[in-house]
Amino acid sequence: MKPMVSIIMGSDSDLPVMEEAGKILEWFGIPYTITVASAHRTPERTLRLVREAEKKGVDVFIAGAGMAAHLPGVIASHTTLPVIGVPLDASPLNGMDALLSIVQMPPGIPVATVSLGKPGARNAGILAAQILARRDAGIAKKLVAHRKEMAREVEEKASRLKKKN
Amino acid sequence: MKPMVSIIMGSDSDLPVMEEAGKILEWFGIPYTITVASAHRTPERTLRLVREAEKKGVDVFIAGAGMAAHLPGVIASHTTLPVIGVPLDASPLNGMDALLSIVQMPPGIPVATVSLGKPGARNAGILAAQILARRDAGIAKKLVAHRKEMAREVEEKASRLKKKN
Amino acid sequence: MKPMVSIIMGSDSDLPVMEEAGKILEWFGIPYTITVASAHRTPERTLRLVREAEKKGVDVFIAGAGMAAHLPGVIASHTTLPVIGVPLDASPLNGMDALLSIVQMPPGIPVATVSLGKPGARNAGILAAQILARRDAGIAKKLVAHRKEMAREVEEKASRLKKKN
Amino acid sequence: MKPMVSIIMGSDSDLPVMEEAGKILEWFGIPYTITVASAHRTPERTLRLVREAEKKGVDVFIAGAGMAAHLPGVIASHTTLPVIGVPLDASPLNGMDALLSIVQMPPGIPVATVSLGKPGARNAGILAAQILARRDAGIAKKLVAHRKEMAREVEEKASRLKKKN
Amino acid sequence: MKPMVSIIMGSDSDLPVMEEAGKILEWFGIPYTITVASAHRTPERTLRLVREAEKKGVDVFIAGAGMAAHLPGVIASHTTLPVIGVPLDASPLNGMDALLSIVQMPPGIPVATVSLGKPGARNAGILAAQILARRDAGIAKKLVAHRKEMAREVEEKASRLKKKN
Amino acid sequence: MKPMVSIIMGSDSDLPVMEEAGKILEWFGIPYTITVASAHRTPERTLRLVREAEKKGVDVFIAGAGMAAHLPGVIASHTTLPVIGVPLDASPLNGMDALLSIVQMPPGIPVATVSLGKPGARNAGILAAQILARRDAGIAKKLVAHRKEMAREVEEKASRLKKKN
Amino acid sequence: MKPMVSIIMGSDSDLPVMEEAGKILEWFGIPYTITVASAHRTPERTLRLVREAEKKGVDVFIAGAGMAAHLPGVIASHTTLPVIGVPLDASPLNGMDALLSIVQMPPGIPVATVSLGKPGARNAGILAAQILARRDAGIAKKLVAHRKEMAREVEEKASRLKKKN
Amino acid sequence: MKPMVSIIMGSDSDLPVMEEAGKILEWFGIPYTITVASAHRTPERTLRLVREAEKKGVDVFIAGAGMAAHLPGVIASHTTLPVIGVPLDASPLNGMDALLSIVQMPPGIPVATVSLGKPGARNAGILAAQILARRDAGIAKKLVAHRKEMAREVEEKASRLKKKN
Repeated sequence: MKPMVSIIMGSDSDLPVMEEAGKILEWFGIPYTITVASAHRTPERTLRLVREAEKKGVDVFIAGAGMAAHLPGVIASHTTLPVIGVPLDASPLNGMDALLSIVQMPPGIPVATVSLGKPGARNAGILAAQILARRDAGIAKKLVAHRKEMAREVEEKASRLKKKN
Repeated sequence: MKPMVSIIMGSDSDLPVMEEAGKILEWFGIPYTITVASAHRTPERTLRLVREAEKKGVDVFIAGAGMAAHLPGVIASHTTLPVIGVPLDASPLNGMDALLSIVQMPPGIPVATVSLGKPGARNAGILAAQILARRDAGIAKKLVAHRKEMAREVEEKASRLKKKN
Repeated sequence: MKPMVSIIMGSDSDLPVMEEAGKILEWFGIPYTITVASAHRTPERTLRLVREAEKKGVDVFIAGAGMAAHLPGVIASHTTLPVIGVPLDASPLNGMDALLSIVQMPPGIPVATVSLGKPGARNAGILAAQILARRDAGIAKKLVAHRKEMAREVEEKASRLKKKN
Repeated sequence: MKPMVSIIMGSDSDLPVMEEAGKILEWFGIPYTITVASAHRTPERTLRLVREAEKKGVDVFIAGAGMAAHLPGVIASHTTLPVIGVPLDASPLNGMDALLSIVQMPPGIPVATVSLGKPGARNAGILAAQILARRDAGIAKKLVAHRKEMAREVEEKASRLKKKN
Repeated sequence: MKPMVSIIMGSDSDLPVMEEAGKILEWFGIPYTITVASAHRTPERTLRLVREAEKKGVDVFIAGAGMAAHLPGVIASHTTLPVIGVPLDASPLNGMDALLSIVQMPPGIPVATVSLGKPGARNAGILAAQILARRDAGIAKKLVAHRKEMAREVEEKASRLKKKN
Repeated sequence: MKPMVSIIMGSDSDLPVMEEAGKILEWFGIPYTITVASAHRTPERTLRLVREAEKKGVDVFIAGAGMAAHLPGVIASHTTLPVIGVPLDASPLNGMDALLSIVQMPPGIPVATVSLGKPGARNAGILAAQILARRDAGIAKKLVAHRKEMAREVEEKASRLKKKN
Repeated sequence: MKPMVSIIMGSDSDLPVMEEAGKILEWFGIPYTITVASAHRTPERTLRLVREAEKKGVDVFIAGAGMAAHLPGVIASHTTLPVIGVPLDASPLNGMDALLSIVQMPPGIPVATVSLGKPGARNAGILAAQILARRDAGIAKKLVAHRKEMAREVEEKASRLKKKN
Repeated sequence: MKPMVSIIMGSDSDLPVMEEAGKILEWFGIPYTITVASAHRTPERTLRLVREAEKKGVDVFIAGAGMAAHLPGVIASHTTLPVIGVPLDASPLNGMDALLSIVQMPPGIPVATVSLGKPGARNAGILAAQILARRDAGIAKKLVAHRKEMAREVEEKASRLKKKN
C-alpha cells in the first residue's frame, strides 16, 4: 500500500521512541515507512528521502531527533508538505536543546512540534492522522473512536482506583 | 465564504501578533475567522466556539496564548481537528512558560506547536496552508510559489548587501 | 462523611505522589475523595467531577498533573472554590513544564501552587487544612499541634546527630 | 473595620504591583492592611506584624517579594494561617529566582504561590476571597459575579474585534 | 575547645553532603559544631542556635539547604557574622531552586554562596578557613600547605595517567 | 592608608555597578583600591595585581565580571585570601552565564558568590566588612549600626506608606 | 584577492552583529566575503555558496544565525572545512535557542561555537585568524600583536580609572 | 613523533570522556599528548603546559572541564593557538554551568566550543583535524573519507532497520 506518512529519525538509537509513532499509525490503519537519516552526517540521503517520499505521494513527514535537532527543519526546508518534529532527550540537557532546535523555526518554514520523547512520538502519529482526516472521512471517524477509547480508559482507571480505596 | 481556519487568541492584546497568521492566510486565499476566548475566564465560550467552528466546517484551529497557555490544549481536548498552538511572550519569563504549557501536551491530545511570537504566528498560517493543501491542489501550488518568493527575497537581500560592500 | 476536599490527578501513575496529600488530610481528620481525570483526554469527566464535588459541598480542590499540566487551571476555570495545584515531575524537563503550566495562570483565575512532587502533595494537604481552619476551630488547633510535632521531630533528629558525633 | 487580609511586601518599590491585590480586595469589600517588611533586613518587624495580624483576627496573608524571595516563607514559618506568595520580577533573572524561592517550600510549611508580578497580585486577591468565601456566603456570591463580569468583558472584546474586521 | 564555626543544615538527610565541610575544618584544626535546624519548621530553634553560637564566640556560619533554601538567609538576617551558604540538590530542579534562593539575597544581607552539593560543602570549609586566617597566622599557613597538597595530587594523577598511556 | 580590600573588575564598563561595593566600604571606613583587569586579555596583569595586593597586606578581594566570568576564580587560584565574586549581567543571558561561571567553582578553590549586579556589589562590600570584623571590633560595631539603620529605613518607609493610604 | 574566510548570515538583519567579524578580519588583513543565506528558506543557495567557497579556496566559514539556528550546522554538513558558529539573540528566549541549536551538534559534524552576539562575532574573526595562522606566520605574528594591543588597552583604562579616583 | 594536539582535562575523572578525542585523533593519524591540569588548583602547571606545548610546536589545544569550567579559557588567555573547549556534565546542573563558562568568552579571547560530553570530545578531535587540514592535504583527504564512512554507517543502519520491519 502506498505510504501516507514517512517517519525519519536521526539515529537508529531513537527507534524505541519513534516506533511509538508507527504503532499509532497502525492503529489508524495509515501506511507508513520508517528509516534513519542524519541531517548532518547524510544531508544527501535526507534530501533523497524527501524527494522519494514526495514522488510516492507521502502526505506528512514525522521527524525525530535529539541534541541540535536539525532533521525536522532540514526536511521542512526541502518540501512544502507538513513536517511534524519530535524532540528527543539525547543529551545531558534533558531535551531542552532538541526542543528549542525544532520549535524555534524562523518565519517561513514551520515545523509542527510535539512533546518530548515517547508522548511526543505518539502525538505525532495522532497529529498525522488529524491532518490526513481533512480529506479522509474514515480516519476522521477513527479519531473520534480513539478519543472515546482514551476517555474510557481513564474512567476504568478511576473505577479501579475507587475499588482499591 | 465558508471559513477554513479559526484563529482564537487568549486576549485581545495578542492581536498584533496573531493577525500575522491572518495575513498569511489571506496571501494564500484561505478564508478564516479571528476572535478572542479565554480558556480560563470563558471556558464555555471556548467550547461554544469549537462546536460552532466544527459545524461551519472549519478544518484547522490556530490558537495563541501567553503565560500558562492552556487555550490550544483546551481546544484540542474538545475537537479532533488539528490545532496549531502559538506560544506568546506575555510575562517576565520570555515566553518559556507559554512554550512549555503548549508543547508538552500529554500523550493522546497533540498540539502542533510553532515558534514564539510573530514568527510563530506566520508559521501557523503556513502550516495551516500545508495541512489544507493535502486536499486542495490550488493551495499546494501556492505553497511552492511562496517558497520561491521567500528564496527570491533572500537572493535580493544578498545582492543589495553585495552592492553596499 | 461528606468530603471536604476533592483530590484529582491527571493519571493513575501519579497516585504514589498524590496519596501523600490524602495521608495528611487523614492526619487532620478531613474527609476527602481521590480520583483520576485528564483535562485533555476527559474534559467532560473533569467538568462533571467539579460539578459533583460542588454539589456534595466540597470546599477545596487539590489537583496534581505533569507535563503541560492544565488540570488545576481547567478545574479552576469551572469553579470559584480554591484550587491547589501540585506540579509533577513527569517528563525529561524535571517538572519545570508542569510548574510553569500551573503557576503562571492569567489574571482572574488563580491556582494556589505548591512545590514539585511529594513535598508539594504534602503541602497541598496542609494548605487545604489551613483554608478549612478559617471556619473550623478544630482543624485550626490541629494545625498548631502539627507544627509542634514537626518542630519536635527536628529537635529529636538534632539530638540523635549530637550523640553520633 | 477589622482587617481580614494582611498584605506585606519586601520593599516599598513593590507597591505598584502589590496594590493590585488591594484593589481586588476592595472590589470584594474585604478589609485589609498593606505594609512593608523585609524578611532579611527586619526579621523582628516581620514576626511582630504576623503576631499583630493574628491578634487582630486576620485570616490570610499575601506576601510579595523579589530575588531570593523569603518573605512569604518566613511569614508561613511563624503562623498556621494560609500565606499567599506573589513572586516579583526584581532582578536580571526575570523573576525565576523569586518564583523558585517562593514555590519550592519544603514539606510541612506551604506557601500558596501565584503567577509572577501584577497578574499574580490580582490572583492573590481573588484567592484570598476564595478562601474567605469558605465561611462567608456574601463573598462566595461576589466570586460568581466577578467570574461573570470577566466573561462579559471577553465577550465584549470579541464583539469589538468583530466590528473592526 | 570553643567552636569557631557553626554548621547548620536544613534536614538530617543533608548530613552526607554537609559533613564534607566538617572534614575540611578538621584538616585545618578548626573546632566546629554541626546540627540540624529548619528555617521554616523551626524558626525559633534557628534563632536560638544563632544567639547561642554568637555567645560561644563562633566566627562563621555554614548553612546548607535544598529547595526554597532560606536557611542561610534567615541565619544572616539574625547575625552580622559571615554566613556561607551551600545550595543542595534536593528536588527535581537539580538544585537550581536552592542556588537562586541562597545567592540572590537582597542588598544589605549577604550570603557567601559556594557551589552546589559536596564540592560546595568542601569549599565552604575552606572559605571559613580563609576568613579565620585573617586573624590566625596558623590557619593562613595551613591554607598555603593545603593548596600545595592539592597541586601535588594533580601532578601525581598526571604522572599516573602518563604511565598508563 | 593601607588598603584592606582590593576591588577588581573585568572591564571599565562595570564601574557603575562595582563602585557600589566601594561606597559601602567607605561607609564602614574600610580603605580599598579599585582597578580593571581581564582574566583573559591580561592574565599577567591579574596575577601581578594579586601579588601586589598580597604584599600591601590586602585582606579580601572583590571581583566583578560578566559573561564567562573567570576573574574571581582566576584570582582565587593565585591566592589563599578570601575572594568575593560579583556576577554581572553583561550578555543576553541575563547574567546566568556569569553566575554559574563564578559560583560553580570546583572543590578546593572557593569563591564567595553574592547576588547579581548592584545588590551583589553592595553585599560584597558588607561581606568584606563582616570578614574584616572577625579581627576588628570597630567594624563589628559598625555592622550592627548598619543593620539598625537598614531596619529604621524600612520602618520609615512603612510609616510613609501608612500615611499615604 | 582570493577570499580566505566566508561569512554567511541567516538574515540581513544580522549584519550589524556579523560585520564585527569582518572588521576583525580586516584588522588581520584576511580577505573575506560576506553574504546572506537561509538554511531553511534557501537550502540550495546555502549549498551553492559552500561549493563556490570551496572552489575559490576558502579555508574557514563563519556562520551567524538566531532562533533554531541551523545555518552553521547545515554548512558543516556540506563541507569538511572548519565552520565557526555565532549564535544570535533574535527571539524572546535571549539567544538560548540559537546557542543550543549551534553548539549541541551530534558526534561527527563539529561546529566551533563562540559567544552570543557581537562578542561572539569578534571572537569568530579572531578564531578564524588563529586557524589560518597554523600555516601563515604573518597572521601568527599579528595575533601576538593583537593580544598585546588588547592588554595595553586594559592598562590604559586602569590608568584612567586611577586618575579619576 | 612531535605532538600536534595537546589534550588537557580538569580532572582525571574526565578521562573516559576526553579519551574519545584521542581516539578520533588516532584515526586521523594525528599525534597528541593527553594530561591533567586544573585551572584553579594548578594555575602554574597549566601555564607551564601551555608554554611547553608551544615550544614542542603543538598546533591546537583541546581542553575539557566541568562546573565553572575555566580551563579552556585560561589556556586561551596564555596562547594565540586555537583552543577547543569541551564542556563536561559534572554537577547537578547537567553541564549547563560548564557550557556557559566555556562558550561565553568575552571579546578578544575565543574558545571554539563543541557539544557537551562524549559527542563533544569526538567533535573536538574532528575539529582539530579540520584545523590541521588547512595545511596538511593528507588530513584533508582523511576528513572526506571519515565523512563517507559515517554516511555509509547510516545507510547500513537504515538497511538493517528495513530488514527488521
